[in-house]
Amino acid sequence: MRVELLTVGDELLLGDTINGNAAWLGRRLADHGVEVTRSVVVGDETDVIVQAAGAALERADAVITTGGLGPTYDDLTRDALAKAAGVPLIRDAALERRLRERAAASGLELEPMALRMAEVPEGAGLLRNTAGSAPGLRVELPGGVVYALPGVPFEMRTIMDEVVLPELAARAGRPEVARRTLRTARLWESMIATRLAPVEAMPGVKLAYLPDPAEVRIRITAVGPDARTLLADAEAGVHAALGDAVYGEGAEGLDRVVHRLLAERSATVAVAESLTGGLIGAELTAMPGSSATYAGGVVAYATELKHRLLGVPEALLAEHGAVHPEVAAAMAEGVRDRLGAAYGLAVTGVAGPEPQDGHSVGTVYASVAGPGGLLTVTMPRLPVPGAGPEIRPVIRRMTVVHALELLRRTLLGLDVDDAAREGRGVREETG
Amino acid sequence: MRVELLTVGDELLLGDTINGNAAWLGRRLADHGVEVTRSVVVGDETDVIVQAAGAALERADAVITTGGLGPTYDDLTRDALAKAAGVPLIRDAALERRLRERAAASGLELEPMALRMAEVPEGAGLLRNTAGSAPGLRVELPGGVVYALPGVPFEMRTIMDEVVLPELAARAGRPEVARRTLRTARLWESMIATRLAPVEAMPGVKLAYLPDPAEVRIRITAVGPDARTLLADAEAGVHAALGDAVYGEGAEGLDRVVHRLLAERSATVAVAESLTGGLIGAELTAMPGSSATYAGGVVAYATELKHRLLGVPEALLAEHGAVHPEVAAAMAEGVRDRLGAAYGLAVTGVAGPEPQDGHSVGTVYASVAGPGGLLTVTMPRLPVPGAGPEIRPVIRRMTVVHALELLRRTLLGLDVDDAAREGRGVREETG
Repeated sequence: MRVELLTVGDELLLGDTINGNAAWLGRRLADHGVEVTRSVVVGDETDVIVQAAGAALERADAVITTGGLGPTYDDLTRDALAKAAGVPLIRDAALERRLRERAAASGLELEPMALRMAEVPEGAGLLRNTAGSAPGLRVELPGGVVYALPGVPFEMRTIMDEVVLPELAARAGRPEVARRTLRTARLWESMIATRLAPVEAMPGVKLAYLPDPAEVRIRITAVGPDARTLLADAEAGVHAALGDAVYGEGAEGLDRVVHRLLAERSATVAVAESLTGGLIGAELTAMPGSSATYAGGVVAYATELKHRLLGVPEALLAEHGAVHPEVAAAMAEGVRDRLGAAYGLAVTGVAGPEPQDGHSVGTVYASVAGPGGLLTVTMPRLPVPGAGPEIRPVIRRMTVVHALELLRRTLLGLDVDDAAREGRGVREETG
Repeated sequence: MRVELLTVGDELLLGDTINGNAAWLGRRLADHGVEVTRSVVVGDETDVIVQAAGAALERADAVITTGGLGPTYDDLTRDALAKAAGVPLIRDAALERRLRERAAASGLELEPMALRMAEVPEGAGLLRNTAGSAPGLRVELPGGVVYALPGVPFEMRTIMDEVVLPELAARAGRPEVARRTLRTARLWESMIATRLAPVEAMPGVKLAYLPDPAEVRIRITAVGPDARTLLADAEAGVHAALGDAVYGEGAEGLDRVVHRLLAERSATVAVAESLTGGLIGAELTAMPGSSATYAGGVVAYATELKHRLLGVPEALLAEHGAVHPEVAAAMAEGVRDRLGAAYGLAVTGVAGPEPQDGHSVGTVYASVAGPGGLLTVTMPRLPVPGAGPEIRPVIRRMTVVHALELLRRTLLGLDVDDAAREGRGVREETG
């Protein structure tokens, strides 16, 4: 079962929109044992869509399109599929009624333009859209089937999960491919690849390295009739080679790992941020149920707020400035105590693009203050990959990972020196 | 001048990585008058890369590839381009020396695998990479030129800006297309499209609507010898139709608009967040120089912290719970006063996926407390597009936009009722 993705929209070619739909579809299909072999983006032109869909069905069994089903005149997927199938567009009375009802329920009049969403290629199957106005379409063409889904992510995902995935999974049968992604923080890609050479040499096993700032995910693919067993062996090999640098797997990022570890301890964390401006808190509140482990946070962006809101001694700030390991430690203790949490997590540093108070970009101190006076501080200079205006989001992202990994290692009682050897840090305990 | 993008990597097909490179390249090329006509993603297979590059050059003048230039065995773009050109890969001595020097400077030994990055197709041009290890490649094929760039965004962007864009712009000549994107908050796509029908009818003008949660960007494209004049006319038409709902243009998001408005007034803002967990602060600190206008923030996630950190009266919280317009107002005043900022911005509400204290998902109150007792509160129920676990990030994103738009309108003295008619809010002034 080979599937190609065909995403339609000038906004994607022009880069006004990032193609998150293709990524989501690829992940979801892989999870269901369906292989995406190519992903193509074309603009809003009927003939180009027709040509691209035909070419895709020469290579694959099914094509999933997203976009071009909305109400405006640049929404052309309906027209293209009718043309490809050699049928006219017809107005669907039930769809029209539903559109009018939805508008009325919102107290709005239906714009005449919105009626375009009631038009479908004759003979097409309608894929129920419980999340929005335009249904998806199923169109059978000579080379295979086209599923046309809306471009609005929320609607696309709903139709995919409720209708298309069950259909495709039924057609695909039992996969002979097994995959898992393991997640590491603060190791370098080439260092990981070297340590994993023995796993890489296993027949039927393929490794891929997915680097992000400060994180590398390792995707293991096992192929063959014993794919699942092989995958388990390969996974054990990765764990043996990398030890506790592997923090999790799949879609479970550091935020969720930390949340789980805190929940297991019935503990909460409070966060004091500066250069990240709230990103760490945003990360820790992304998942439902985060109020069980995240108490709150203080973003002490202006230096004097580090004293006023967190109790960092004024003398310390006057002597060393805001970017100093003792300031990070005082921030962690301050936020823990003032917010009444079990743990305090703090970061201070220079996100760039300019140096600050004599500290270079990427100088970041993180600290965890725990129960019973436990205090962990690392003093790394992050491995800054360059300079210029693009560096700021990279340093901020690295800082989030660095801080959450420090908290994870502290919660698990892991050696912080070990992490620090990669990140050039030290550990102190005052408890 | 037609360019196609060819992005290489299983991680993109599998959705482990979102194709942000393609979006960035599309934007950058459009800004330089170069049209991206198609964007294709293929997996890590040499023959597929060879085939896709050849097919692209049948349609376009140039192909830009990203990915597959790294040190590991799944990095196959070098091999594919050598095969497409019918030449061998050769080890470049200068590149090898540079790799060894870079490793030595970091105190690391060069992994043997990393030497793959010193191999290039014979006769290929090397595109200097000042941001990383692997250079880009320029390979001339029968149908046109291929620029091969690394997949690491930071390195790809650097080579693109420093080397490839100047080359392509020189080849492209003067564009007869002019584009601009205008940004609106809190209007619906179909409402905008209806109001803009007269602009849509202008010959040579094309409009596209790019919806995000709570924002719609309007891309105006003008084509023809008078493209620039036409664009200006169309832009005036959009402003006339939508008025002050247009908050900005191009890449300047609400965060930057608010930053600029505050800077013009030499004013600062402090932010009190709950359901957004720090996202508003993160947004306001994304740009360099944000310390001039952003003082800091408090994330009062736990209800009692709204009292302890922000001075929200305990009686108010006991009577109404945390999700109430008066709580938002007290949070805004509290954070303004405690952080010593000119303005306080606060949000409280329900991000979901579950209702909270009897309030449905998407119930969000935002408040701005300004100088001289000015107080603005809106009480909307956000136009929730659905339910389920996917709704949480949407509501959080909508809340950020809603809050920043409220601050913008307050700073500009615009009628908040007018915005509120869309978002169902009210305004109170106690000053």
